[in-house]
Amino acid sequence: MTLRLCYPLAAWIFILLLPGLSEGGKLLVVPMVGSHWLSMKEVVQKLAERGHEVVVLKPEVSWQMGETQKHAYTVKTYPVSTKLEELDNAFKAYVATHLKSLPFPLNVLALYNISSNAFSTFFLQCKELFSSTETLQYLNQSGFDAVLTDPIFMCGATLANYFSLPFVFFMRGLPCNLHFEAAQCPSPLSYVPRTFSFSSDHMTFFQRVENTLISFLELFYCNGYYRAAIQLSSEVLQRDVSLIDLLNSAAVSIMRFDFVFEYPRPVMPNMVFVGGMNCAEKKPLPKEFEAIVNASGEHGIVVFSLGSMVSEIPMKKGMEIADALGSVPQTVLWRYTGEVPPNLPKNVKLVKWLPQNDLLAHPKTRAFITHGGSHGVYEGICNAVPMVLMPLFGDQMDNAKRVESRGAGLTLNILEMTSKDISDALKAVINDKKYKENIQRLSDLHLDRPIHPLDLAVHWVEFVMRHKGAPHLRPAAHDLNWIQYHSLDVFAFLLAVVLLSLFISVKCCMFCCRRCCFKKGRKSKSGKSKTH
Amino acid sequence: MTLRLCYPLAAWIFILLLPGLSEGGKLLVVPMVGSHWLSMKEVVQKLAERGHEVVVLKPEVSWQMGETQKHAYTVKTYPVSTKLEELDNAFKAYVATHLKSLPFPLNVLALYNISSNAFSTFFLQCKELFSSTETLQYLNQSGFDAVLTDPIFMCGATLANYFSLPFVFFMRGLPCNLHFEAAQCPSPLSYVPRTFSFSSDHMTFFQRVENTLISFLELFYCNGYYRAAIQLSSEVLQRDVSLIDLLNSAAVSIMRFDFVFEYPRPVMPNMVFVGGMNCAEKKPLPKEFEAIVNASGEHGIVVFSLGSMVSEIPMKKGMEIADALGSVPQTVLWRYTGEVPPNLPKNVKLVKWLPQNDLLAHPKTRAFITHGGSHGVYEGICNAVPMVLMPLFGDQMDNAKRVESRGAGLTLNILEMTSKDISDALKAVINDKKYKENIQRLSDLHLDRPIHPLDLAVHWVEFVMRHKGAPHLRPAAHDLNWIQYHSLDVFAFLLAVVLLSLFISVKCCMFCCRRCCFKKGRKSKSGKSKTH
Repeated sequence: MTLRLCYPLAAWIFILLLPGLSEGGKLLVVPMVGSHWLSMKEVVQKLAERGHEVVVLKPEVSWQMGETQKHAYTVKTYPVSTKLEELDNAFKAYVATHLKSLPFPLNVLALYNISSNAFSTFFLQCKELFSSTETLQYLNQSGFDAVLTDPIFMCGATLANYFSLPFVFFMRGLPCNLHFEAAQCPSPLSYVPRTFSFSSDHMTFFQRVENTLISFLELFYCNGYYRAAIQLSSEVLQRDVSLIDLLNSAAVSIMRFDFVFEYPRPVMPNMVFVGGMNCAEKKPLPKEFEAIVNASGEHGIVVFSLGSMVSEIPMKKGMEIADALGSVPQTVLWRYTGEVPPNLPKNVKLVKWLPQNDLLAHPKTRAFITHGGSHGVYEGICNAVPMVLMPLFGDQMDNAKRVESRGAGLTLNILEMTSKDISDALKAVINDKKYKENIQRLSDLHLDRPIHPLDLAVHWVEFVMRHKGAPHLRPAAHDLNWIQYHSLDVFAFLLAVVLLSLFISVKCCMFCCRRCCFKKGRKSKSGKSKTH
Repeated sequence: MTLRLCYPLAAWIFILLLPGLSEGGKLLVVPMVGSHWLSMKEVVQKLAERGHEVVVLKPEVSWQMGETQKHAYTVKTYPVSTKLEELDNAFKAYVATHLKSLPFPLNVLALYNISSNAFSTFFLQCKELFSSTETLQYLNQSGFDAVLTDPIFMCGATLANYFSLPFVFFMRGLPCNLHFEAAQCPSPLSYVPRTFSFSSDHMTFFQRVENTLISFLELFYCNGYYRAAIQLSSEVLQRDVSLIDLLNSAAVSIMRFDFVFEYPRPVMPNMVFVGGMNCAEKKPLPKEFEAIVNASGEHGIVVFSLGSMVSEIPMKKGMEIADALGSVPQTVLWRYTGEVPPNLPKNVKLVKWLPQNDLLAHPKTRAFITHGGSHGVYEGICNAVPMVLMPLFGDQMDNAKRVESRGAGLTLNILEMTSKDISDALKAVINDKKYKENIQRLSDLHLDRPIHPLDLAVHWVEFVMRHKGAPHLRPAAHDLNWIQYHSLDVFAFLLAVVLLSLFISVKCCMFCCRRCCFKKGRKSKSGKSKTH
C-alpha cells in the first residue's frame, strides 16, 4: 500500500518538472458540449499550461460549456443561428423520452427518433461553422499542428480532414462500435457486449444471439443517426465519405477506459486508456459541506446526483426517492434543482451543486447514488464508494451493468423502481460488506498505475503534434477490403486448389482403373477368343 | 526535440525517487539462457534494488548466464546431469545447420530436427528440476508472491502452475503465434505476418496464401517442438495439459515490442510493451575503443557483431566478409573470436568483445552490421544507426525484414551473399542518405515515450506481486470454446430461424394459394355446372 501511494507522489514530481520545458505547438480543439467537456477540459488546460497555443473552437451559443474558471487556452467562437433555448429543449425532450414508459417496440422507435433529433440540432451548428468564411479563414491561417476532438458529432473529424491536419480523438466511446471498427480493432461478438446490449462479457446463449442481432441493427441505425453529418462531410470534403472514412484516419484515440471498469477485449496500439483521469485532484471540502459531513455522526453521508445534465425529475419519482432516502440513518446530500418534493425527510439536504469527487473522497461517505455517467462511476471507483445506479440514457445502462457485474453496486430501473426498491438497494450497499470490499478492490487496482492518465493523454496529444501524426501505429488492415481482411479470397483459392487436386486425382485413378480394366477386358477377351 | 530529451530526464528523477519506497515482496525468476537473459536481467536487478527478495532459479550447468557483475538478486541452482559441452555442442550444431545450403524441403526438415534436438536438451534440464526434491522443497517453503519467466521452454510456466503462483511472462515472442493465441488475441492472417514467413504487413496475394499455409502447419510443428515439455508438464501437474493450457493463465505478458519496429496489430490489455529497454543506459567508451574511434577520422566507424551467441563462422564466409570490409574507408570494429581470416584488411579491428550500445551511440558510427537479433536491432534504432542485416536463425529473418521494410537497412542472405553484395550493401547504408533519415525518424518515434520501458516492466511485475495476479485483465474469451468464440452456434441458430420462417411463410403462402385456387376451382366448376 505504501508503494501505491508513492507512485502518485513521484508522478506528480515528474509532472511538475515538465511544464515550461516543452516547445510550444499549436493545437485546435473541437470539443463536445455537456459532460463530455469535463475531462477533456483538464487535458486542454494542461496542454495550454505546458506552453502550447491551444484554441478551443465552439459555437457562439453552446451548451454546458460555461468557462467559469480561469484558463490558459483561447476560446474562438463561430456564429450560429441556434438559440440556447432550442438546445435546452432538444435535450429536455431527449431526457423526457427516456423517462416515459412505452411498450416495445414503441419505446425503441421513440428513442431512435428523439436521439436523431438531438443529433440533428448539434449537426446544424457544425454546418454553420462551414458557412462562416471568417472562421474558416482564421483556422486556415493559424497553422495548427493537430486537432484534438471528441468525435461524437463528427464535426472535429470533418474539420481535420478539411484542413488535412492529423487528429487525436478523446472520447468515452461511440455508438455502433464505430470507435473500434474504424480503428480496425476486432470485437468478437461472443464476449464483447455491444453498446446498449446491457450485457456483461459473460453472456448466455440468448444474450449472445441478442448481441449479434444488435450488431446487425447497428449497420442501419448509425447511418440514420449520422445521415446529416455524413451529408455535410461529403459536401465539405467534395467526395463521398462514410462514417468509417471520417474516423479511420485518427492518429491516436485517447479513450476514457480502464479495464477495472471495462471488460477486457482486443485493442489497438494507437489506443490510449485514460479512464479515471477526472478524479485525481482532490481539494478540501468547502466549509458548508464540511459542516454537514461532520454533523452526520457515525452513520456518515450518502452522495446523490443524477449528473450535471439532469437537474430535475418528475415529481412522482422525486417523492418516491425522497421517501426511500428517509429510511436510512445517513445524511443524504442530493444535488437537485427541481421542485422540492413535499415529503422530503430531515436527513436529506438538497443542494444546487456539490463537490462530488471531494465528497466521495471523504472517509464518512458510505454510498453514492448516481445516474451512472462514466465520470461519476470513475469517481466512485477512485474513492472506493459503493454505488446505487439509476441509469437514464446513453452509455449509462451499460456503465451500471459493469459496476453491478463486479459486485460493487446495485442497479435500479428508473422507470419501474419503487420507494422500497430504492431503500433496499441503498441499505444493501451500505450495510453488506461485500459491496465495499469489491469497490475497494477495484479502486486499489485502478489507482495502481505506472503513469497518471492525464500525463498519458497530454503525452500522446503532444506526440501527434511533434511528429505530425502517428503513421507507425496505423495497421495495414486499412489497406485491405473486407474480403481480403477476412482472407476469404485465400480460403477460396486454397479450396479451389484442394478440389482441383482431388478432381485430378480421381480422374487419374479412374483413367488408371479404366486402363487396367480395359487391359484385363482385352486379355480376357483375347483369352476367351483363344479358348474359342 | 528539447521536450524529447526532457522526458527521459524527468523519468529518471521519477525513478530515483522510487527505490527504497517499496514494500518488499518475494519473486521467483525462471529465466531463459543466452541472449534472452540480457534484458530480463535488467528488470530483475531493478526489482532486487527496489527491495524485493528476488531469487533467480537456474541449472547448475547453464549456458551464457555467467554472473560477471555484482547483482542484488540471489541465484539458486539445481543439480543437472547435462555438461556445458553438451549444451555448447547442441547450440553449435543448431547454428551450423542454419549455415548449410540444403535444397527445399531438406533444409526445412533439417532445421525442424535440429531445433527439436536443441529444445530437448533444455527440456531435460527442466525435468531434472522436478526430480530435485530439495529444490522443490526450498521453492515451496519460500512463499513467493509471483513468478517472472521467459516462456520459451515452458519450465517457468509449469513451475508456476505447479505451485499455483501468479506469473508474468517476459519475452520477445514464441513460435507458432502461441503468445497471442494463448492470450486470446486475434491475429488476422491477412496483415499479421506469422513468424518465419519473412513477410511484411503488406502482403501480396500469394504471400497471404503462404501466411495462411504457415498458420496451418503451425498446428503440427509446435506440438512437435514442445512434445517433451507438454509430457513433462502433464506428469508434473497430474492432468493432461496442452501448450495453451500452460500459457493462458499468465497474468501479464511483458513483450520486448515497439510498434516502431513491429507491425501494428491487435493486442490485449494484459500485454505490456517494453521494446528497446536494453539500450537506455549509455556509458562512456573504454579507453581502447575511444582511441580507435578517434583515430577513424572523418569517415568514422562501422560496428560489426553477429551477437553474443555466435562467435565464429566458416572460414570461406569469413574471408568474403573481410574482403568486403576492406572496400569501405570506415574503420570496422568486428566482434569475432574465430580463426582470423588471412585477408583481413587494415581498416578492420577484430575484438573479442565490444561495448555495442555505447559504440552505436557514438556520433562517428556510420553503420551497424548485425545478425538481426532483437536486442541489437533495438540498439540500432535507439541510436539511429542504419543497418546491414545478416540474419542467421530464430526471429532474426523476421527482424531483418522489419528493418528493411522501413527503409532503415538492407538484408543479406548469409548463405548466398558474395563479397560484392556485402560491400554494396554497406556502401549503400553509409552513403545513401535515405537510410540515415529513415532510421533517425524511427529513432525519434521510438524514444518519444511517456514512461521508460524498464519502469513499465518493473511496475507490472510489482503489480502482479501486490495483487496476486491481474484477473481484471483476463478476457472472458478464455471461458468460451472455439464454436462459441466464433459465434458459430449463434449463426447456426439464426440461420435455422430464418430458414424455418421462410419454410413456414412458403407453406402458408402455398396453403393460401391452394385455398384460393380450390375456391376458384370450385366457383368456376359450380359456374360451369350452372351454365350447363
